[in-house]
Amino acid sequence: MRDIHREISEWLRHLGATVRIDAVGNLRALYPSGHASAPCLLIGSHLDTVPNAGAFDGVLGVVLAVALLQGLDGRRLPYAVEVVGFSEEEGVRFGVPFIGSRGLVGRVDVQLLETRDERGVSLREAIAAFGLNLSELADAEVRDNVFGYLEFHIEQGPVLENLGLPLAVVEAISGQSRLDLTFAGRANHAGTTPMDLRFDSVAGAAEWITTVEREARAVPGLVATVGSVETRPGATNVIAAETRVTLDVRHREDAVRMREVETLTNCAREVARRRGLSVNCSSRMAQKTVAMDPFLGAQIEEAIRKIGCKPHRMSSGAGHDAMILAEKVPSAMIFLRSPGGISHDPAETVAVEDVEKAIECGLHLLEQLASAPEFLTRTCRA
Amino acid sequence: MRDIHREISEWLRHLGATVRIDAVGNLRALYPSGHASAPCLLIGSHLDTVPNAGAFDGVLGVVLAVALLQGLDGRRLPYAVEVVGFSEEEGVRFGVPFIGSRGLVGRVDVQLLETRDERGVSLREAIAAFGLNLSELADAEVRDNVFGYLEFHIEQGPVLENLGLPLAVVEAISGQSRLDLTFAGRANHAGTTPMDLRFDSVAGAAEWITTVEREARAVPGLVATVGSVETRPGATNVIAAETRVTLDVRHREDAVRMREVETLTNCAREVARRRGLSVNCSSRMAQKTVAMDPFLGAQIEEAIRKIGCKPHRMSSGAGHDAMILAEKVPSAMIFLRSPGGISHDPAETVAVEDVEKAIECGLHLLEQLASAPEFLTRTCRA
Repeated sequence: MRDIHREISEWLRHLGATVRIDAVGNLRALYPSGHASAPCLLIGSHLDTVPNAGAFDGVLGVVLAVALLQGLDGRRLPYAVEVVGFSEEEGVRFGVPFIGSRGLVGRVDVQLLETRDERGVSLREAIAAFGLNLSELADAEVRDNVFGYLEFHIEQGPVLENLGLPLAVVEAISGQSRLDLTFAGRANHAGTTPMDLRFDSVAGAAEWITTVEREARAVPGLVATVGSVETRPGATNVIAAETRVTLDVRHREDAVRMREVETLTNCAREVARRRGLSVNCSSRMAQKTVAMDPFLGAQIEEAIRKIGCKPHRMSSGAGHDAMILAEKVPSAMIFLRSPGGISHDPAETVAVEDVEKAIECGLHLLEQLASAPEFLTRTCRA
Repeated sequence: MRDIHREISEWLRHLGATVRIDAVGNLRALYPSGHASAPCLLIGSHLDTVPNAGAFDGVLGVVLAVALLQGLDGRRLPYAVEVVGFSEEEGVRFGVPFIGSRGLVGRVDVQLLETRDERGVSLREAIAAFGLNLSELADAEVRDNVFGYLEFHIEQGPVLENLGLPLAVVEAISGQSRLDLTFAGRANHAGTTPMDLRFDSVAGAAEWITTVEREARAVPGLVATVGSVETRPGATNVIAAETRVTLDVRHREDAVRMREVETLTNCAREVARRRGLSVNCSSRMAQKTVAMDPFLGAQIEEAIRKIGCKPHRMSSGAGHDAMILAEKVPSAMIFLRSPGGISHDPAETVAVEDVEKAIECGLHLLEQLASAPEFLTRTCRA
């Protein structure tokens, strides 16, 4: 993290920005406007990533922000631009994502600071060990002159590739529900128990998993995933007493998501009842959909058209820092096509032409916002 | 094992038997006939069991053999009876079952002796450490005067309970096939990958598991079990790249079992092909059905009728020492009803009345065999 801070800071200083690392480890680079009291646009993404990751998830959005400043070629806008390189978006070390962006919306609380990593080091201690000063936490928060947040990010999915389009406007970051389900039957000998006298938790779970898939295929925009299956005792010659599965359900409309969670858990209960099994469904996460700002979305759409591309509107199935920033400021995201839809993998990539288009689009957007003083003023909380 | 050897040996000596522990740790108690050159009937089962086991699997069959000698009340038969308490039937320590009974058929070979337990102790070393002498291995083998082997065992399944019957004649010990199947798709983000662009190994495996169950229900006498399911990476929010499942298939007819293994693996390939997944099927075990002796089976049937019960004929889905003994001598098994079909569990039990019936039946059988000199002579290899 120190290496990337040093590297990117150098680029940004060359472009006339003032760089600091805030109290939660975010890189913050202010490219001032012509006048001191001007409104401010944040542009950024995260600098951290996952183990065995690719080279673009997160950091591409920060590099694109730098490229936009470079594209301005020293020119000043009627608003300041602050480039943000967020820390700890993925949640790898502390099991909690979005720590950096939570710093900007005032949500780094005592509970979060006491969260510990696998070695027992608390976030508070890690921040101090990095040489940061928690007493400056308030300075990390977005100021009242900030009128918007813009984030470029690879799509991490196959939608744009399938449409043959380079860029998309993100309308919303989909809500998600995560559940654990445990089907319980009766362990028994695989050789001595006739088929009609079994209480097989694997067979019950399998029937339910096929229904999950069928239901998700039938409801437009719904994704439902069983990513983990565990069997107990899990022996070749023993009918499994217990099968634990996870369920991940996402839809841009909260009402649809909640209805489907209900449908799928009811279905699990029906399968269990019919087979003489029991099932326990417990919710681990239920997060609402976060809408992106419609005005900024329309502006992005216009900018994509200006570079000769068809703007696709989509919702993000993955969480992003923009979801957190949206609590305080109008936020917007631009997705770049992910070849093969691959992410969190060394094979993750992005086409150079698509990056060029993203820069072009971003520069148009900066110009458009410069001509929209009423938006800048209206959305600032000052 | 020393404790049970001591205890049971004492009972047997009181009944007039000569007791020894053979070179592979089997308890061998000879209850002689009136004359020295008489044929010999083996009656036994195993003394070992599994961790967290019940009190009846195996040892009940040895205790019933003792009870039959007791029931003779000092009377001599025209044949000798050798009670056998087998060692290491379950295969817990060395991962190889039937070590004791292999000793009786001359199949304790160098490879088996070099098998090591979890601590690295070889079977050879364990035998020596127990105080046994491997140079006496030949003395453990069944002699030419042995005309049959009889084993009482709890059913370990729910068939007799469901029929409301105490005893069954085992006609065959079913063959079994064990396979590992690995469905491979593509790991992807559970939130960003639309349903129609997924290569979900869990969904494919689940579809196949439902087919396995349907097929097994449709074919009389077939049992097919998926007892273990493992997912990789196995995270709630990641479409699993790989799902490994086990398959256990048993049927008393080898041709049916082999045909069904073919059907089920073809089905896995078809599911995989249709979904753009791959599947690897590898065989871990393919063991043929072992027939029990028809003459002894008919005699058991008659003995069960004599005690006023309906004799049920069935095949055993589990392996037993009788399967090994059958390589050398006509073998037979009598199952006792397992309440709840429960075995390998502290809740494993047996009804006192059923044990009484088994003793009665066994005594009738001993009498019947005493009146069948042509069988005794014909089946002895001497």
